[in-house]
Order: sequence, then C-alpha cells, then structure tokens
Amino acid sequence: MKQVLAEIITIGDELLIGQVVDTNSAWLGQNLNPAGVEIKQITSVSDNREHILEAIEAARKRADIILLTGGLGPTRDDITKDTLADYFGVGLKVDETALAHVRQLFTRLNRPMLDINEQQALIPENCTPIYNDRGTAPGMWFEDKGQIIVSLPGVPYEMKNMVSTFVIPRLKEHFQMPVIRHRTLLTSGIGESYLSKKIETIELGLPAHIRLAYLPNFSTVRLRFTGRGSNSDQLDKELEDIVELVKKEIGIFLAADSDGSLQEIIGKRLIELNASVSTAESCTGGYIAHLITSISGSSRYFQGSIVSYANEVKESTLGVSAHHLEKFGAVSEEVVTEMAEGVRNKIGTTYSMATSGIAGPDGGTEEKPVGTVWIAVSGPNGTLAKCHHLHGGREQIIERSAFLALDMLRRYLPEAE
Amino acid sequence: MKQVLAEIITIGDELLIGQVVDTNSAWLGQNLNPAGVEIKQITSVSDNREHILEAIEAARKRADIILLTGGLGPTRDDITKDTLADYFGVGLKVDETALAHVRQLFTRLNRPMLDINEQQALIPENCTPIYNDRGTAPGMWFEDKGQIIVSLPGVPYEMKNMVSTFVIPRLKEHFQMPVIRHRTLLTSGIGESYLSKKIETIELGLPAHIRLAYLPNFSTVRLRFTGRGSNSDQLDKELEDIVELVKKEIGIFLAADSDGSLQEIIGKRLIELNASVSTAESCTGGYIAHLITSISGSSRYFQGSIVSYANEVKESTLGVSAHHLEKFGAVSEEVVTEMAEGVRNKIGTTYSMATSGIAGPDGGTEEKPVGTVWIAVSGPNGTLAKCHHLHGGREQIIERSAFLALDMLRRYLPEAE
Repeated sequence: MKQVLAEIITIGDELLIGQVVDTNSAWLGQNLNPAGVEIKQITSVSDNREHILEAIEAARKRADIILLTGGLGPTRDDITKDTLADYFGVGLKVDETALAHVRQLFTRLNRPMLDINEQQALIPENCTPIYNDRGTAPGMWFEDKGQIIVSLPGVPYEMKNMVSTFVIPRLKEHFQMPVIRHRTLLTSGIGESYLSKKIETIELGLPAHIRLAYLPNFSTVRLRFTGRGSNSDQLDKELEDIVELVKKEIGIFLAADSDGSLQEIIGKRLIELNASVSTAESCTGGYIAHLITSISGSSRYFQGSIVSYANEVKESTLGVSAHHLEKFGAVSEEVVTEMAEGVRNKIGTTYSMATSGIAGPDGGTEEKPVGTVWIAVSGPNGTLAKCHHLHGGREQIIERSAFLALDMLRRYLPEAE
Repeated sequence: MKQVLAEIITIGDELLIGQVVDTNSAWLGQNLNPAGVEIKQITSVSDNREHILEAIEAARKRADIILLTGGLGPTRDDITKDTLADYFGVGLKVDETALAHVRQLFTRLNRPMLDINEQQALIPENCTPIYNDRGTAPGMWFEDKGQIIVSLPGVPYEMKNMVSTFVIPRLKEHFQMPVIRHRTLLTSGIGESYLSKKIETIELGLPAHIRLAYLPNFSTVRLRFTGRGSNSDQLDKELEDIVELVKKEIGIFLAADSDGSLQEIIGKRLIELNASVSTAESCTGGYIAHLITSISGSSRYFQGSIVSYANEVKESTLGVSAHHLEKFGAVSEEVVTEMAEGVRNKIGTTYSMATSGIAGPDGGTEEKPVGTVWIAVSGPNGTLAKCHHLHGGREQIIERSAFLALDMLRRYLPEAE
C-alpha cells in the first residue's frame, strides 16, 4: 500500500529565535502516526512571505498533505492567510458562520469588537473553513491537484481541537491509510551500545517493514518497534514474536513491557504489592520525590521524604549516627544505609530509597571525587547499598543518581503475586 | 554589515513520530542569536540518507552555516556520520584523541569496550573533530566553499557543551559578526500579556536596531533587549537607558536586573543575609527542594526539606495539628501555615516555604477544585500564606506552585544591608 506522507510547516519568528519551543509538531506526529499518516519533514520558518511560499512548494514535492501552523492571529505580523490566498490566486470572502462565532465570543466576553477581529472571519474563496471552538481564527482546508493543504492556528489548545475533530477524520475519508503499529520495551540499567550488542542478531534479522529505534534517557533506554502493513492482526502477531525474543535476550534489564517511565512502573508494582515508599535524599535534593509525585495517583504509595542536605538534619531527623558521619563521612555506605533505614522507620513505609553523594562542581576530594554517589534501598528483606561513580555536570549527576535509585528499587521489589 | 545566516537540521525518526520534542533548536536559537547569527530555517528529517542530503543541499542555498544535530550514536539507526563522509566524498579515519577519550571513559567505568564504541572515534577525513567531554561521539566541523557545516550529537547535554565551548567561539573567528549586546531583566509574578501592556509605549518606541524578546518560564518572564550595531559603547548606553525606563514601569515585578533564575537570585540574597532556608512540601512533592539544590553551592543556605505527602507525615514530622487537618483539610491556610512554621523549627532555618494543594487530575472537590494551592512563607517577621487557583495539567500545577513559592520568598526577604 502506498504510504500517505505529510509535512508540517510551523510559522513564526518566535520559533527561530528560540523564544518558543515547537511542541505542536511532536503532538501532530503523535496523533497523525496512529491514523496512518507518516510525517516526512518538519520545517520552521519566520513570518516571511517568500520563505513561507518556498517551504510550501518544497513540501508539495515530497508529501500528500501539508499542515501549516501559526500566523493566523489578528496582528500585522500574521500573514499566513493572505499569503495562501495569493498563492492560490483567489480573493478573500467573509465566512458568515465564522463571523457570527467571533461576534458571539466578544459579546460573551463583553468586549468591544475591533476591525481586526472582524477580519478574522475573512477566508480565501477556495477553502473549506475549519471552525475554531476555542479561539477567533478559523482554520483552512484546501484541496489542490490531489494534495491537501491545511492551515491551523499556532496556539496549541486551538490547533489540537481542530486536528482531532476535523482534520484527522477528514484525512481518513480522503486517503486510504496503511496500518501502523508500535510496540515499546523499557530497559533500565544498561547502555545503548550494550543493548544493541545483546540484540544484534534479532535487529539484523528484522523484516524491512519493521523498524527499531533506541530512545535513551538517563539510565533507561526505550526500544521502539514500528511495523507497517495492511493487516493489523498479522502486524501485531509479528511484533509480538519479535518482542518476545528481545525480552529473552535482555533479561533483568527489562524494566517494563510498555511505554511508561521507571517511576510509573514502580508505582504500579507498589500498588499491586499494596506497599508504600519514602525517600531520604541528600545529593538528589528532593528530585526522586519529585519524579515519584509527578505521577498522578502517587499518593496511594508515596508517603513522604526527608531531604537531609545538612549533616545536622541527617542526625536530627533521620537518626544517622554522629559517630558514623564523622568517621566515614556523609558520602559512605554506613550513612546512606542509616538514611534509608531511618526514613523507613520515621515515615513508616514498606520500602525506602536513600542517596548521598557529591554532585559537584565543588566538594570533591581525591578519595571521593565529584560523581561519587552512594545509593541504598531498604525493605522487609533488609538494606542494600551501592556506590556509583558518575560523570557529567551537577544536573546530570543529580538526575542519573535519581534514576539509578529508582532502578535499584525496581530490582529489589518482589514480583507481585 | 552582512547578516550571518544559519540553518538547523535535526535528524531522528523520534522527532517525526513525536516521541521527542525538539528542544535543541530553541536552545540553539537562543544561544546563536546573541552571538550575531540569525536562524533562517529549522528542518527536522528522519534517519534517512537521501532525505538528510536533500535537506543539507536545500539549506546550503540559503545559509552560511548548517548545524546538524542527531544521528551520531553507536547504533545502526545512526547514519549521520557515514552520510556526511559520502556527501564530501571522503573516507573515515580514526581520530586518536577521540579514541583515547572513549577508551579512558570505559576504563574509568570498568566496562569492556565494544567494536561499535571504537567506531565512534572514526571521523570523516576532511573534518575537524569537536571533542565531547560529556559522551562518546565526537562532533564534526566541516568547511566547504566558504560555508560551515557542523554535525553535533542530539543529546542536549552533550550538544550544548560543544556549542558553547567550541562552535560559537569558532564561528566568531570565522565570520565578521555584527556587535550584539544584550540586557536581560527577570520579572516574576506577572504574565506576558500584562507585562507587554505595561511597557507598550517603551516597546513601540524602540529603535529598529534594538529588539525585545519575551522569554516566559512559569511565573517568570525574561525581557531580553538585543541591540545590533557597530559601536559597543554606544549600544550599551542605549540599552542602559531603555532598561532604566522599563524598570520604573515594572516596579515590584522586577525579580532581578540580571539573567539568573529565581532560585539563583534567592540563593545570592540568602548568602548576603547569612540566612538559611528549608521547605515543607505537599503538592510540590520535593520540586522546590530540587530547584534550590540544582544550584551549585546551595548547601551554604539550604538545610533540608520535609516532603509531607501523607497527612500522617504532616502530623508526625512537621507537628501539624490533627484537629486542623480534620477541620480545614490539608489544603488550607491553617495547615500550610503550620507546615511552614513546623519545618522552620524542626530543621532550624531562618526562612521556610510550604505548599499544600491539589495538583490533579484527581482529588478536586467543588469547594477545592484541582489547581487550588496554598503557599506559605515563614521567617523572623512571621508567616504569610496565600491561596492560588492555577490552571493546567498536573506537571504545570506542580511547577507553577514551586515558582510561586520561590517568588513569595523573594518578596518576603529583606534587602541585604
């Protein structure tokens, strides 16, 4: 089956000077892909007429669908609509539905309507308007020489609604889409190159219609298999067979047979185990607690944390022995063990994690250089502690330590019954 | 003076299917702009040889500098290096420095080195290697027909370091850049549109060679004034005059006359005041502590935090009254006040911040909907508490709450003597 290809053109000076990160394109990719549309290229250009036209022309040579976002606002720098009307050699007409919508909006907000707002109801004569429930600028759907050109607002909240309710359903009517299926495995505690070595034979044997991508992020690497075809059952079966082979190869490094994060996986396991967790954090400074609590529903298993940055807090709040602090230093097996056990007792949880290390850039010594991090996990089966030697800047060391602690807990947790 | 134009080409399937949001391009725009380089276009393409080459050829027709990111990893889907070698019609050679660096990295990690890791030290014969202090893949600097083509890793942490330490300095040597001067004001507690209304007259009166960018980030907005010209003294004087006018208009919303973050500003003030701080966090789940400890040297003023997610922890660790918890609920003025005072006493710091709110998506009620957040600040002059009603998803509510707490402390702190 022929692939249906789309290109995205995002328009706006703010994208090129880095004032705004383009999140629209990723959202469009995420939502068009499962519908069977493949994104060939994403192009960002400034609010410049010639450059917009050049980008459209180039995109039409490669793709069936061109999605433009941005440049539909009421101010002088928004030129997408006029540029498109000129491009198709047509004039603008008032769209009565769009005009009534804008009028109603201003009445509801009890604000006077300006000329520039009325002009938002003007659309090129040859387009189908895409009504905007969430703003004033309608989108535009053009059909030309078998290709579809769609112009959408840059405001994510407005754009997303128009794509979900109008653009995707209409594209599905217009094109015969191939079936696209994804399967993702989350691995943890193993680097990209070792992983690739482990599954080399499988990777080399993949059929042409199934592709593998490695997506690394701190101590996790996502393996994403993407299959294309016409029969979804057959694709699912093929992907399933491959994934089973891969899972056998990666063994303990498999964190989850899904697309979740390490903290989500742990959360699910803790709920299954009807267990709770707390953290005692020194060098990670609350970052593990933040990762855990960024998951909705984490209050079901997360009770709390003690960020014991100063040694006095380690003693007074966690009950770490002053003698150990003096004899071994804060970054030591003895202290991190007492931290993990201390917080578990203090807060009263089934499990706990603790970190103590030197995130840098200052504070390193010959014996304990920057990047030396002790991590401990405590639970009903006792306390484990491990020393890591991490590289990178302060931010990197904090983030890697947090993910290493989460991965240590993941391996420590028993399988749910 | 002739403009120096650059284009960015980001390479990777993950960008096109929307698995990863391209943040590299915005960072490059933010950092190349001040150096005198203007970004003409950003293009994202998949790990596909022909398409990468097509994008390079198109970009070279428009720009002086082509920056590629991505596709330099050790795995099979990383094809940028081979593609570039073929494009220039050259072979690959081993770069001994890069090889020694990779070897040293693996020795230090005490891991066996694989063939694919050795291959990372191979570079096209005609390029200057850009050494990677933070990873294994070197970057590549090509000069061809007066144009510069630079290939960088897609990992932001690695890429940023190479751009700051190698690429920008070298571009400045290579091209005659216009004089560019920046002045940045950090504002806090005021939205972009209100801010823009406040300084409308000044903005409209800016001369053509001075541009203003709004850089919003949660409860802070950076105002960056960029002046272009040939005389640096004159530019500095002009910028100074404008900044003084703006400072008068924004008053209390000025967080700092500099480019630091809110947590850096607070850190500096606490050091000047010889004071310390702690946090008691419920809905922010350790995120404020994380923001504070992400600043190097924060151990000089940050003692620790108690993340009291569960009510029992609020009682047992912070001494919040069970009666208040029952009568007013955890998200209340009474409880957040006791949390702030409790952590200040418990950990023994000059100041403290506390948060208690409903980050959602569940847990909201008619009376206290998702987004209801109480924030308190405590210090020698007493305790202040304020209720906010925030919008957005869980992550946004957590992040905005944290920055609102930091801003509340900023305003509470006395001016250093």
